[in-house]
Amino acid sequence: MKLTILGCYSATPRTNTNPTSQVLEINNHTFLIDCGEGTQVELRRNKVKFVRIKHIFISHLHGDHVFGLVGLISTFRLLTREADLHIYGPKGIKEMITLQMKLADSWTNYKLIFHELTSKKSELIFEDDKVEVHTIPLIHRIYTNGFLFKEKEGERKLDMNAVLNAGIEVAYYRKLKQGFDVENKQGNLVKNKTVTKPANKPKSYAFCSDTAYNEAMLETIKDVDVLYHESTFLDKHEKLAAPTKHSTAKQAASIAKQAKANTLVLGHYSTRYNDLNEFKTEAQTIFKNVELAEDGKVFEF
Amino acid sequence: MKLTILGCYSATPRTNTNPTSQVLEINNHTFLIDCGEGTQVELRRNKVKFVRIKHIFISHLHGDHVFGLVGLISTFRLLTREADLHIYGPKGIKEMITLQMKLADSWTNYKLIFHELTSKKSELIFEDDKVEVHTIPLIHRIYTNGFLFKEKEGERKLDMNAVLNAGIEVAYYRKLKQGFDVENKQGNLVKNKTVTKPANKPKSYAFCSDTAYNEAMLETIKDVDVLYHESTFLDKHEKLAAPTKHSTAKQAASIAKQAKANTLVLGHYSTRYNDLNEFKTEAQTIFKNVELAEDGKVFEF
Repeated sequence: MKLTILGCYSATPRTNTNPTSQVLEINNHTFLIDCGEGTQVELRRNKVKFVRIKHIFISHLHGDHVFGLVGLISTFRLLTREADLHIYGPKGIKEMITLQMKLADSWTNYKLIFHELTSKKSELIFEDDKVEVHTIPLIHRIYTNGFLFKEKEGERKLDMNAVLNAGIEVAYYRKLKQGFDVENKQGNLVKNKTVTKPANKPKSYAFCSDTAYNEAMLETIKDVDVLYHESTFLDKHEKLAAPTKHSTAKQAASIAKQAKANTLVLGHYSTRYNDLNEFKTEAQTIFKNVELAEDGKVFEF
Repeated sequence: MKLTILGCYSATPRTNTNPTSQVLEINNHTFLIDCGEGTQVELRRNKVKFVRIKHIFISHLHGDHVFGLVGLISTFRLLTREADLHIYGPKGIKEMITLQMKLADSWTNYKLIFHELTSKKSELIFEDDKVEVHTIPLIHRIYTNGFLFKEKEGERKLDMNAVLNAGIEVAYYRKLKQGFDVENKQGNLVKNKTVTKPANKPKSYAFCSDTAYNEAMLETIKDVDVLYHESTFLDKHEKLAAPTKHSTAKQAASIAKQAKANTLVLGHYSTRYNDLNEFKTEAQTIFKNVELAEDGKVFEF
C-alpha cells in the first residue's frame, strides 16, 4: 500500500503549498483522493501515470478539495484518454463538471461516470474481488465524506512442506488456498489449517478530511492500519477549530487512539503555522505512531 | 505600460508551462487578463498584489483560460477582500462561478460584479477618465473576445518658459492643459499651441487569444502599440491551425503588419514545440518587431 501526498494544506494554493490531494495505490488500483487546484501538475511532478487513474474520490465541494477536478478531466480528454473514469463525490458534482464542459463545448471522448453521494451513513461505494471502498460520514460545514479503503481477506498460503508430506494432489491446491479441507492421495481428510498458513493481513487506509472532532466515525474506521486525519489547527487554536468544523492535532490523535489505528498521518494544516513538527509533538502526547503528511511525500505501508 | 506574462501556453498546465494569464498595468490599473488553472499561484510567484486587481477580463470559457478563476475568487474571500471585483467574460461565466460557490456554500463577502458579453461586434466595456477597454471579436470554436486596452488622450503639457513669457496667470493653467486659448494679464488672447506641447501619445495594448486568422479584427486594433496575438502553431502545422481555429506565427505577423502595430508579442504556444525561437524567426519573415511571451516575463512598453 503506497500513499503519495500531492498536497496537504488547507484553504488556498501557494507557491510552496498545495491543497488536498492524494494518490493511494492498493492492490493494483491507483485511487485519486480529492483534487484541489493544481492537482494535475502535482500528478506530473510526482510521476503518477494519468492512465492508471480510473477512480477519483472527492470528499466535499470546498474549492481546496475539488477545484482541480475539471482541469484534470479536461486534460485527460486532450491526452485522448479512452478508459472510463469513475467519480465519487457529493450530489452536485456532476452538475458542477458538466456545466463547465457545456460552456466550453468540450465533451470527453471517454466515459465519465458520476457516483453522487447523499447518504449520511457509511456505505459501500466500490467493490471488486480485492478491494472495498466505504464512505466515512464526517462533520463539516457542508456535506462531507471520508473514505475507507480496505483490502479483502486474501487467500491462505500453502505450507509446501506440509502439503507434500500430507500427499495432496496439485489439483486440490486451489481449494486449500480457499480454506477447504481436502482428501489426500490415500483418501484421508486433511484439515486445512495443518497444511496452510493465514493470508497476509488485509491492509486498510482511512482518509478523513475535513471534519470536526467526530467519534461517530470510530465504528467505521475501527482497527484501521493507517488513518489520515485532518489537523487544521493546534490545540491552542481549538476555538477556531470548533466553528469552522475542523480538528486539532490532539483531537486527531484521540480519534486514532480510540480507533486503535496502527499509524496516524496528519495533514490539512492551516498555513498560519511555520513548524509542522508542532503538530506531531502535540499528537504524540496522546498517540505514539504519528507521521506528518508533506507535499510530495510517499508513504509505503 | 507593464505587461507580466503569468502563463502563455495552450491546452494543459504542466510543471514548467502555465496556461494563459497576463497582468496589464496601465495608468494605475492592474487588469488581469484570462485566468487558467494555477493563475493565483503565478500571481504570488510574480508578486502581483491581489488587492490591486479590480477587473478581470476572460476571453472565452475554454479551461486553459478560465479554470483558475473560481479559485482566485475564493482566495480573495479567504483573504477577507472588501473591494468590488468586476469580471468581464462570455455569457455563462456568472452561472459557472456562482454554481460552484453555491455548492461550496461559500459566498464572497465582497461584491462580485459580472459583465456578461454576447455581442459579436466590438464594444466599449470599461471606461474611466484615463483608460478604455473594448472587446475584439475573435473567431474561435466558441464565443471569444480579445480586449483592446487604450489610454485616453492625456492633457497637453505646459511649456513653462513660453507660459511665463506670455504673462498668463496661474489660474488659467488648467484651461491651457485642456487645450483652450486664454487671455494674458494684458488682456490679449494667447493661442494654446504657442505655450503648450502635445500630451504623451496614449498607449494601447491588444490581447488576441485564441483566434483563427481574422482580418476583421484589423478595424479595431489599427495602429495599436503592442499586439499580443496567439501563435499556437508554426506554419508547417497550418493544417492543424485551421480546424482548431488557431493561428500560426506567420498569420499573427501578418495581422500585426496590416494593423501597423509597433510590437508583436507571440504566445499560446502548443507544447509540441521545444524551441520557441522558431516562432520568432517565422514571424520576423513578415513583421520585424517580434517578442516572445514566456511565463514570468515582464515587458515594459
